[in-house]
Amino acid sequence: MAVLGAGRMGQTHIRNLAAIADVHVVVVADPDLAAATRGRQIARADRVVTDPHEAILDRGVEAVVIVTPTSTHAELIEAAVEAGKAVWSEKPIALDLAETARVVDVIGRTGQPVQLGFMRRFDPGYAAARARIEAGDLGRIEQFRALSRDTFPPSVDFLRHAGGIFLDMAVHDLDLARFLVGEVREVRAWASVLADPRFAEANDFDTAMTVLHFENGALGVVETARHSAWGYDIRTEVAGADGKVVVEAAQKTPVTFSRRFAFEGDHFQSFPDRFEAAFRLEMEAFIAAIRDGHEPTPGPGDALETLRLALACKRSQAEDRVVRLAEVTM
Amino acid sequence: MAVLGAGRMGQTHIRNLAAIADVHVVVVADPDLAAATRGRQIARADRVVTDPHEAILDRGVEAVVIVTPTSTHAELIEAAVEAGKAVWSEKPIALDLAETARVVDVIGRTGQPVQLGFMRRFDPGYAAARARIEAGDLGRIEQFRALSRDTFPPSVDFLRHAGGIFLDMAVHDLDLARFLVGEVREVRAWASVLADPRFAEANDFDTAMTVLHFENGALGVVETARHSAWGYDIRTEVAGADGKVVVEAAQKTPVTFSRRFAFEGDHFQSFPDRFEAAFRLEMEAFIAAIRDGHEPTPGPGDALETLRLALACKRSQAEDRVVRLAEVTM
Amino acid sequence: MAVLGAGRMGQTHIRNLAAIADVHVVVVADPDLAAATRGRQIARADRVVTDPHEAILDRGVEAVVIVTPTSTHAELIEAAVEAGKAVWSEKPIALDLAETARVVDVIGRTGQPVQLGFMRRFDPGYAAARARIEAGDLGRIEQFRALSRDTFPPSVDFLRHAGGIFLDMAVHDLDLARFLVGEVREVRAWASVLADPRFAEANDFDTAMTVLHFENGALGVVETARHSAWGYDIRTEVAGADGKVVVEAAQKTPVTFSRRFAFEGDHFQSFPDRFEAAFRLEMEAFIAAIRDGHEPTPGPGDALETLRLALACKRSQAEDRVVRLAEVTM
Amino acid sequence: MAVLGAGRMGQTHIRNLAAIADVHVVVVADPDLAAATRGRQIARADRVVTDPHEAILDRGVEAVVIVTPTSTHAELIEAAVEAGKAVWSEKPIALDLAETARVVDVIGRTGQPVQLGFMRRFDPGYAAARARIEAGDLGRIEQFRALSRDTFPPSVDFLRHAGGIFLDMAVHDLDLARFLVGEVREVRAWASVLADPRFAEANDFDTAMTVLHFENGALGVVETARHSAWGYDIRTEVAGADGKVVVEAAQKTPVTFSRRFAFEGDHFQSFPDRFEAAFRLEMEAFIAAIRDGHEPTPGPGDALETLRLALACKRSQAEDRVVRLAEVTM
Repeated sequence: MAVLGAGRMGQTHIRNLAAIADVHVVVVADPDLAAATRGRQIARADRVVTDPHEAILDRGVEAVVIVTPTSTHAELIEAAVEAGKAVWSEKPIALDLAETARVVDVIGRTGQPVQLGFMRRFDPGYAAARARIEAGDLGRIEQFRALSRDTFPPSVDFLRHAGGIFLDMAVHDLDLARFLVGEVREVRAWASVLADPRFAEANDFDTAMTVLHFENGALGVVETARHSAWGYDIRTEVAGADGKVVVEAAQKTPVTFSRRFAFEGDHFQSFPDRFEAAFRLEMEAFIAAIRDGHEPTPGPGDALETLRLALACKRSQAEDRVVRLAEVTM
Repeated sequence: MAVLGAGRMGQTHIRNLAAIADVHVVVVADPDLAAATRGRQIARADRVVTDPHEAILDRGVEAVVIVTPTSTHAELIEAAVEAGKAVWSEKPIALDLAETARVVDVIGRTGQPVQLGFMRRFDPGYAAARARIEAGDLGRIEQFRALSRDTFPPSVDFLRHAGGIFLDMAVHDLDLARFLVGEVREVRAWASVLADPRFAEANDFDTAMTVLHFENGALGVVETARHSAWGYDIRTEVAGADGKVVVEAAQKTPVTFSRRFAFEGDHFQSFPDRFEAAFRLEMEAFIAAIRDGHEPTPGPGDALETLRLALACKRSQAEDRVVRLAEVTM
Repeated sequence: MAVLGAGRMGQTHIRNLAAIADVHVVVVADPDLAAATRGRQIARADRVVTDPHEAILDRGVEAVVIVTPTSTHAELIEAAVEAGKAVWSEKPIALDLAETARVVDVIGRTGQPVQLGFMRRFDPGYAAARARIEAGDLGRIEQFRALSRDTFPPSVDFLRHAGGIFLDMAVHDLDLARFLVGEVREVRAWASVLADPRFAEANDFDTAMTVLHFENGALGVVETARHSAWGYDIRTEVAGADGKVVVEAAQKTPVTFSRRFAFEGDHFQSFPDRFEAAFRLEMEAFIAAIRDGHEPTPGPGDALETLRLALACKRSQAEDRVVRLAEVTM
Repeated sequence: MAVLGAGRMGQTHIRNLAAIADVHVVVVADPDLAAATRGRQIARADRVVTDPHEAILDRGVEAVVIVTPTSTHAELIEAAVEAGKAVWSEKPIALDLAETARVVDVIGRTGQPVQLGFMRRFDPGYAAARARIEAGDLGRIEQFRALSRDTFPPSVDFLRHAGGIFLDMAVHDLDLARFLVGEVREVRAWASVLADPRFAEANDFDTAMTVLHFENGALGVVETARHSAWGYDIRTEVAGADGKVVVEAAQKTPVTFSRRFAFEGDHFQSFPDRFEAAFRLEMEAFIAAIRDGHEPTPGPGDALETLRLALACKRSQAEDRVVRLAEVTM
C-alpha cells in the first residue's frame, strides 16, 4: 500500500492498516517529511517520499490510500487508477459536480476498485440500522432525522476552501439518508450564523436545517451545527410503519457517577473517538474487497449522488426555494 | 367546581380534582347521564345535569372545568366568565382566529382567571427544561426540535372536525416551541398521507414536517405523525451555545429484561400514561392560582398566539410557501 | 373507611383513598387533632377523633387503614378484625415473632381480610418482574440481588424503637426476595457503623450485608445502607438460566442536560417519589379485594414469614454465624 | 518483542502490539506452528519458533509477552527475567501461593519490569472510577459490589486445571476490589452448581457469592456465575459517603430498535468485545512503562496479593467459615 497524506487522519488510517494481517505499507507520502516519518514508524513502512505521484507509481504498491487535502483528491484518484492501483480516498472526490463526474468516468474506464471515506456506514450502529431496514423490520419508511453537531469549529482558512456547511459537513448525514432511506426527490434548506461571526467572514454558516423529500414519500430533516459545548452530538432516527431505529452513542466511558441527587456520564468528544471503530472497519472492508475481488462500497457512484444532494441543499439555501434533485446537473 | 364533560378525559380531570384538598365538585354535566353519574361517583359530587349552562349557573360553583367537544369551548368559556366563574378549559378555545380573539376579549373584559389545557408545560420534564433555559444554562438558543408520534390514529369522524394535523396535533409542540424558545417569525410546513388513506378521506394528513424560524434567530423543526407502532413517541430537544436539554421519557416501567444477548424495556402507550403527572399538576396549578389570586398560565393570550402559529403552519402547507406569522391576521 | 394516623404517610394514604371512586372516609383518627383535621379536609371525611378505637367501632366503617406507630399495629389490627372490619395496615404487625403469630391467629379466626403495606410489590417494575418470573422467562433462578440505600437517616429516637436495620429497613428487600424468588433456607448477615456514630448510640447499624440461600438453590445478597448522598438508591436483580430482570428507576424527571462533554439527570429523592405509584396501587388493590371478596395480598402469612427472615438476619449478625430459618421459632 | 503463545488471546495481543509505533515483534513462539505463523503474519514478525525458551533467548528481544497456558507462566516469567528481559504475562503467575512468592522474589532480584494481565484496570470505565475515588469524590468508601457472569462456560478439561471459580474467574473482581477500594481483611464465600452438572464433574462450581470485609471498614460482595444466556454481564459499584460510581457497559452497538411498545438494544458477547479497549491499553501501558523506565502496574506484588485473596475465598467456601487474609500464608 501507499498512503498519501500523514496528517492526523492519515496517521489514524496508517495505524488501522498496520493492524490488518499481511497488509504492508510500502511508502508514506507527505510534503511534511516529519509527518511522513511518523507514519512510516507506525506502519513500519519501507520509505517516505514528498511527492504523492512517486508513491503512486511505486511498483510494489497495489493500492493507494488518499488522505490529502480535498483539492487534490480528484487528481490523485485519477493518477492512481490510471496507474492500475486500487484506491481508497477520503471524501469528496471534488466539490464540483462536473469534475466529480469526470473522475467517476475515468474510474469506470479503468475498472479499478475505488472506495470513498463515508465512514459512518461502517459504524456498527448504522450498519445494524441498515440491516433492520433491509430486513423489513421498520415497514414502509415514513421519517428520517439526522442531527450532527461538530464539537470544534474549523478555522476560517479551512472554511474558505471547504465548500460550505452543506458540502463539508451535512454531507455525512445526506449520505446516511441515501444509505438508510433511499434517493431524495427535492430539498429545502436554510442556514444561519448564530454561534460565531467568523463563519460569515468565510461566507459560510454555523447552523443549518434541511428538509428532505424522499422518492419513496418519506419526509426527512437534517440539522447541522458547527460547534457543540457538550461534545460530539450525532443522532439519527429512522421511523417506519412498523418500527423505528435510533443510532446514538450518548455515553463514551462506561462509568456513571452519582452525587447530590443526580447522575452524570460523559459524551464523546469528536469523530475520532465516536467513530473509532468505523475508521477501522472501513479500511478492513476496503482491504477485504480488493483481496476478494468484490467491488468496494461506498463507491464513486455514491460520491456523485451524495454530492448532487449536497449541492441541491446549497442551492436551496442560496435561492431560498425548494430545489428538485433533477435540477442539479452539470 | 362544576365539571362540564365526563368522557374519558373528563373523568381524568375529575379524579385529579378529587385528590386536591378542599376542592368540592358540586355538579357534573354531560348529555350522557351515565357518564355524568360515573363522574359524580368519582368526585362524590352533589348532582348531575345534562345541560352545561345549568351547571355554570349553579350558585355553589366558583370555577368551571370544560372538557366538552372542541366546537363548544368558545361558547361555554364565554358563558362561564360572563357568569363570574373562573375557567379551566381544554384547548383550543376555537379553531378560528377571529372567534378565539373575540373570546379572549370577553375574558379580558370580565377579568376572570382562565387557564387552557396545554398540559405538557406541567410535565416535570418540560418544567425542568424551561427552568434550565430561564437560568441561562443553555446560553443563546440555536436549535429546537420536537418529535410527536401519536400511537392510535383518531377516527375519520373525529378528524373531520378536528382542524387538521397542525391545529389538532402539532399544536402541542408549537406551544412548547413558544414556551421553551420564544415567538416564531415564519414557518414552512409540509404534510403527507403515508400511513393510512383514511386521512386523505378526511382532507387531513398523517405525517407532517414544519420548520420554524424564531424571532431570536434559532432554527426549529417539528415532526408530527398520527400513528406509532412502538408507542407514544415524544421527544423535545433545545440546544444553545452552552448546553442542551432533551425531554424524553423513553421507558415506562422501571424494569429491564435481558435474554439472548439483548435487553428490552417498554415504551409509554399514549398521553394518559406519559402525561399522567402533567394532567394532575395542571389542575393543581389552576386551583392554586385561583385560591391565591394569581393569574393562571397558560392563559388566553397563549391560546391565541399558539393558534396563530398553527394556522401559519396550515397555510404554509396548503400554499407550499414560507408564511410569516405577521401574515396571519383575522 | 376509617384512617388511623394522619401523619405524613397517613396523608399519602388518605389522598390515594380520596381518588378511588365510591370510597368514603368516614373518620380520621389521630391524637394530634390538627393532623386529623388536615386528613379530613383531604378526604372530605365526616369527622375526626383522637381515639383510634372510637374510629374502629364507628358503625359506618367497613374497613380500617392503620398508619399509626409500629408499636400499636398489633393491638389495633386485633381490635379491628374483632370488630368485623377489613384491615389495611402498615408493616410490620409487630417486631416480635410470638406477638405477630398471635395476631395472625386472631385474624385467621375472625376471617377478616387483612393486607400489609409491603408496597414495593405494587410498583409496576416489581410487578412486571414477577410476571416475567412466573411466566418462566428467566428459567431456573440462580441469583438475587437487592440494594437499598435510604436517603435520609432516621433520628436516634426513631431508631431506638424501630427494631434495627434488618427489621426496619432490609425487611423490604427480604419481602421482595420471597415475592420474586421464594422462601429462604438460611442467611448470613453482617452490619457496621460506617456513616454516622449516632447509629451506634441507638444500638443499630447504618450499613449491612446479608447473604441468602434460597430453598430452590439460588444465592442472594441484600445490601442495605441508611443514608445516601446521591438519592434514593433502590436496585433489584434476579438472574436465571435463561434471562434476567433488573428493577431500577434511575432517573426521576424525564429531562437530560448536557454541557462540557457530560450529561446529567436526576435521581429520585426518597420513597414518596420513587414509590408514588406503588402507594396508590396497593390501596386500590386493597379496595378491589374487599369489594370483590378476594383475599388481599400480601397478607398476614407474608408478614409472619418475612419477619422470621428478618429475625434470622438479625440473629446471624448478632451471633456471627449462619442461621437457618428453621431455627427461628417462637 | 517476543510473543509466547499464539492462540486466540495471543493473536489479540499480537494485533495490539502491531498497532504501537516502533514496536517490532521479532519472534512468535507456539508449539502449533500454524498458529505461530498466523501471529507472525499479523505482526510482520521475523520468525516463528516452537520452543518459547528459544524466543526468550533471542538477542534481538527486549521484552517478552507470555500468553501460554497457566501452568507454564511461572517458569517462563522466571526464564525471561533471568535472561534480562522485561515481561508482560497473562495472570496468574501461578495458582499456588508458594510458587507465586518464589517467582515474585526472582523478579525482585533481577529488577526486571513485569506487568500482569489484569486488563480491567485499563478499561476506561474502571480507570475513570479509580480516578474519581482517588480524587476523593466518593468520600469514605462504604460498599463495593461486583457482578461477573461469563457468557460461555469453559470445557471440563479446562476447568480441571484452572484452579476453580475463585482463582480462575472471581479473581478479576477481587483484583478490582483491591484496585478500587483497598486491601481485604476477611472473606466469606459460598458456591453452588446450579446451571450445569459438568462443573461438579470438574470439582468446581458455576455460581459463587463472596462477602468481603475491607481493612478500611467497607463491606463488599462479589457475585460470580460461569454462564449467561443474555451476554457478558459485568457490573461494578462503589459507594461512599459522598457519591457512587457504577461501571457497566450495558449496550454494545449504539442502535436502539423500537416496536410493539418496547425498545431493545444488544449486550456485549464476551470479554473480547467488552474489554477490547482494555486489552489494547494494557499493552500500550506496558510498552510506555518499559520505554520510559517507569515500573509497570499491576505488578508482581498485585499478583501475589490478589492470589492470596482468591485463595482465602476458596478456603472460606471449602471450610464453610470466615477466613482472615492473615491466615493465608505459604
